[in-house]
Amino acid sequence: MSEASTFQRAYSPHRKQQRAADLMEAARALGARDGFRAVTLTAIASQAGVHASAVRRYYASREEILLALAEEGYADWSEDVAARLTGPRRVAPHELARILAASLAERPLFCDLLTHVTLSLEREVSYERVRAFKNVALAAVGTLTDAITAAGALDRVRAGDLIIGTIAMTAPLWQAAHPADTLTRLYAEEPSLAHLGVDFEPTLTRLITALIGGMTDP
Amino acid sequence: MSEASTFQRAYSPHRKQQRAADLMEAARALGARDGFRAVTLTAIASQAGVHASAVRRYYASREEILLALAEEGYADWSEDVAARLTGPRRVAPHELARILAASLAERPLFCDLLTHVTLSLEREVSYERVRAFKNVALAAVGTLTDAITAAGALDRVRAGDLIIGTIAMTAPLWQAAHPADTLTRLYAEEPSLAHLGVDFEPTLTRLITALIGGMTDP
Repeated sequence: MSEASTFQRAYSPHRKQQRAADLMEAARALGARDGFRAVTLTAIASQAGVHASAVRRYYASREEILLALAEEGYADWSEDVAARLTGPRRVAPHELARILAASLAERPLFCDLLTHVTLSLEREVSYERVRAFKNVALAAVGTLTDAITAAGALDRVRAGDLIIGTIAMTAPLWQAAHPADTLTRLYAEEPSLAHLGVDFEPTLTRLITALIGGMTDP
Repeated sequence: MSEASTFQRAYSPHRKQQRAADLMEAARALGARDGFRAVTLTAIASQAGVHASAVRRYYASREEILLALAEEGYADWSEDVAARLTGPRRVAPHELARILAASLAERPLFCDLLTHVTLSLEREVSYERVRAFKNVALAAVGTLTDAITAAGALDRVRAGDLIIGTIAMTAPLWQAAHPADTLTRLYAEEPSLAHLGVDFEPTLTRLITALIGGMTDP
């Protein structure tokens, strides 16, 4: 393979799209293995088989890659919840809580990313990039609000608050439920501290149920 | 001042305690100015007038300093809430929510630190250090639980859930309510995205009120 044809091959639109997808997939794999906090741009590039110096042809930064994953996560999660809420029956509060929590529990990468979004990802990217992200987030909130109200569970305003509260609680609860080895060992060795540990889905379900209950007239 | 007496001065127990306090105070000042995400060990040392190479006599890492601030924060916040709940009258749910949110809103450094605690601080320090931290957190939860139940607001189990939910929501809501300049500009320029912005105390009060409502029999 000559250098000229390799160069052409790397820069065809199809190939560029493929490389970008490879980088996203590499970031997913590393996030799943180590947690996104530990994932570096160099590691993503290496995992994707892209030269570190070439990554910026596809993404401006590590934060841009992770924000793209969070964007996909918002769209995917909202669509899943909407699908689960579709149907002729009114969805009871407890069922709505169960669906929201279960859907999130099945999306550990998205849950991990949520903490990073507000702390750093949306702070580090360009105006245009964060604008695109916020439009995806807005659309996801719209999808969720439509589905929750159509299921007869809450009015639009309370549905909006439920979504904020759910996303807010999910981020730290997921981190707390997936601690470092020192904490896992500590909880095992000190029973009095063990109940500071968090069991993600049951805790989230219980708290979302309470949120909905407080928004629902008895 | 001779080098020998300077050396002795730096290592007297009183002076060592003072240096450690200077480092904590420097971290607080930088956290207040830039947000803890941007605060480095080098900057803390410089601000405190401690040589960068000497910091580890007092703290093992940046994470240890920030975790110490979070520890203080837990003790301070729980004592403030307990003081506000003390009294002969039963505290109504809405009042309890107002007190919790107001107390947190008055503690921006603690609110900022909460995200860092679960994401990185408790992951990065030694077993003994995180054990000490968890014991302080446990004591704070105990103080809060005692105060909430004594005020007649909730039973112990639900009080525990309320505390988890409150702390969980506070962390990301605070970050979202204190965005980078790009986001502030975006919200100003795109009204449709503006309502993704968060007004910290009102939103937190509303969500805590809902949590309590859902835990209280009508």
